Amino acid sequence: MLGRYLKNVRETAPLIHNITNYVTVNDCANILLACGALPVMADDQAEAEAITAICGGLTINIGTLNSRTIVSMLLAGKKAAQLGHPIVLDPVGAGASPLRTHTADELISQLPLAAVRGNISEIKALSGSSSLTHGVDANASDKVTDDNLWQHFTFARKLAKAWNTVIAISGETDIVADENKAFAIKNGSALMSKITGSGCMLSALTTAYVTAAKKTETSMLEAVAAAFCTMGIAGENAADRMGSLDGSASFRNYLLDAVFNMTEEELDTKAKYELVSYTDD
Amino acid sequence: MLGRYLKNVRETAPLIHNITNYVTVNDCANILLACGALPVMADDQAEAEAITAICGGLTINIGTLNSRTIVSMLLAGKKAAQLGHPIVLDPVGAGASPLRTHTADELISQLPLAAVRGNISEIKALSGSSSLTHGVDANASDKVTDDNLWQHFTFARKLAKAWNTVIAISGETDIVADENKAFAIKNGSALMSKITGSGCMLSALTTAYVTAAKKTETSMLEAVAAAFCTMGIAGENAADRMGSLDGSASFRNYLLDAVFNMTEEELDTKAKYELVSYTDD
Amino acid sequence: MLGRYLKNVRETAPLIHNITNYVTVNDCANILLACGALPVMADDQAEAEAITAICGGLTINIGTLNSRTIVSMLLAGKKAAQLGHPIVLDPVGAGASPLRTHTADELISQLPLAAVRGNISEIKALSGSSSLTHGVDANASDKVTDDNLWQHFTFARKLAKAWNTVIAISGETDIVADENKAFAIKNGSALMSKITGSGCMLSALTTAYVTAAKKTETSMLEAVAAAFCTMGIAGENAADRMGSLDGSASFRNYLLDAVFNMTEEELDTKAKYELVSYTDD
Repeated sequence: MLGRYLKNVRETAPLIHNITNYVTVNDCANILLACGALPVMADDQAEAEAITAICGGLTINIGTLNSRTIVSMLLAGKKAAQLGHPIVLDPVGAGASPLRTHTADELISQLPLAAVRGNISEIKALSGSSSLTHGVDANASDKVTDDNLWQHFTFARKLAKAWNTVIAISGETDIVADENKAFAIKNGSALMSKITGSGCMLSALTTAYVTAAKKTETSMLEAVAAAFCTMGIAGENAADRMGSLDGSASFRNYLLDAVFNMTEEELDTKAKYELVSYTDD
Repeated sequence: MLGRYLKNVRETAPLIHNITNYVTVNDCANILLACGALPVMADDQAEAEAITAICGGLTINIGTLNSRTIVSMLLAGKKAAQLGHPIVLDPVGAGASPLRTHTADELISQLPLAAVRGNISEIKALSGSSSLTHGVDANASDKVTDDNLWQHFTFARKLAKAWNTVIAISGETDIVADENKAFAIKNGSALMSKITGSGCMLSALTTAYVTAAKKTETSMLEAVAAAFCTMGIAGENAADRMGSLDGSASFRNYLLDAVFNMTEEELDTKAKYELVSYTDD
Repeated sequence: MLGRYLKNVRETAPLIHNITNYVTVNDCANILLACGALPVMADDQAEAEAITAICGGLTINIGTLNSRTIVSMLLAGKKAAQLGHPIVLDPVGAGASPLRTHTADELISQLPLAAVRGNISEIKALSGSSSLTHGVDANASDKVTDDNLWQHFTFARKLAKAWNTVIAISGETDIVADENKAFAIKNGSALMSKITGSGCMLSALTTAYVTAAKKTETSMLEAVAAAFCTMGIAGENAADRMGSLDGSASFRNYLLDAVFNMTEEELDTKAKYELVSYTDD
């Protein structure tokens, strides 16, 4: 089912505008190329709208945000909204500083978002639940487990309805939910938390998938789930490839290589998820 | 013939000032080190001139430009001009936004440039031909082929004369031209378009080669051609090294490794080009 | 003796705030993760203090500094000082431009620093000795050798006393000194100078080690020496792993891999240093 979303990306080769942090920006550009999309990075307010206008989708990632780029995020976001381009928000470090939390709040209130992709602490911080994000990482106490899975489904669903978006929470178990359905995804590798950029790359990948889904009139929710499974399976393939001297740097390379080499069949076969449809109202 | 230009770089170890985008800046620094040059990155107007003054050459790359760095590009460029340092311009995304097109136009009109290195759509956009750059990538319709090669030679030659620079257009067939001669270069690998930074790295490499050429009083045109052949051969070597699990990330590493390991003999032997001298006037 | 400092990092997993340059920021984040720490990058003045407040230590790296980030460096530094967090300064390119030299001077005069980590030319430039830093690299004439080792011990010791910090000078022989003791460290590989970021990564690693040392009430001097030995041994391990087609990009990956795979025992066994205690006053 999900394999066709990768096919959609490769066939439509969407051009993605990314306003993103300077820590992982190279990885984000490379993962977009690896999956079959094309990246453009531009964050000056004098060109944010013009660049958005020639693209098909927009990633807004608030890591290393500053007063100059926040303006550009809003300008690009409003232009993307006018043009009907999917926007994915990655609220990196929301909950870790008031600037990040407030900026993410403002983006959520002012822009129509195709998806919000974060870790559980970031999403909780933005939902109004009290959560202290551990820098840009999730707090251990917020972890999604089999025991609290339904609680998190309900949480994600409510937020998806309130914000009119897909809520996409990455972790050992990922949750990808709109107001009607939710995926619990079990792909991935613990090594993904040992490199910087796993989350940022996933957000960029998500933008590619939802942009291709928009072009092909397929499901936004499934597109996000497909991006998550692609990343998770790539993590598994990368982990399988690790030799005795390999460490986190080799893992990062193998991860990108695995996205580059991913096939639709592999995505269909290796995706591990449960899909829940809500029927309670 | 071209191998000695690599030798020049290794023997003179030129210090290169780069005002460049934050997407591929790490790759640019690493390719300069790989070829035997030394990189410095500095983009604040309070030090742009001072850093230029201690270097031998300057790369100006307008990817992720902003109002702050545009000022620094002009300051550094004018200082480099005063000191007789070669300047290489990479007009990343010219044609994709008015800001980029206008900034590149201004840099071309105000600075003496050793070379302008871009893809065909970027160079066309700056020449006044109408061209819509596809983000930071060339438009398929602009492609240089065997059929339109002479047309592109003429185009590059006229531009080289008008701008008093070497016009260096990268693509499946590269064109490197001044007003008297032109190289058509056939080295390279299709995988180079699957990673970010191939173009930016080539521009930085070009600055190293022209700076060493200036120091050793050798040909600027041949220096640019040598940089292009170095990159193209490195791409071929990297492609040859790809294993079944390797993808775009491994290719990027192999590409840089291949520049690091490139020998003068290899550059002489593997370079694939036609050199045309104009005799028509 | 030094192995326990790596253990301290892995057991305390310190969260490190880095205000650093955009050239090597990804490598800095990845080396912090590789050693067992967690990175956060944030450079806007509206959040610099808030981010520092949730972290345990702060790296200030002045490569690609600008007027905006200099303010943030001072704000974050003063907050870290208030909270008793160790601060490591990397004066990248001090001596190469007045802006860098003056900014480093100001940071040294205004902030209590756990360590200053630079190459010999940078440290000399800041000490008031005349030295012209070769871009961001040391001048050959400044080199630490067996012949001038005592001279450099004395130099570092005086500076450590004057600035009330650990002076940490990297080079073929590293010198790590406070006012009472000094390490001369001989680990490392010449390939480390063929990639960008060796110095920046070492500074980030140093912050992780001193932050963990602070938490565990162990020696700051030894913590810095342990960070230097970790990096040097990782360089040796990476060099040992180089195959015939490998070059600088593979070396960079192997270096990070080696930090990721470093064991306490390896650090204890492979560390090559002389420790000198001053008894002259």
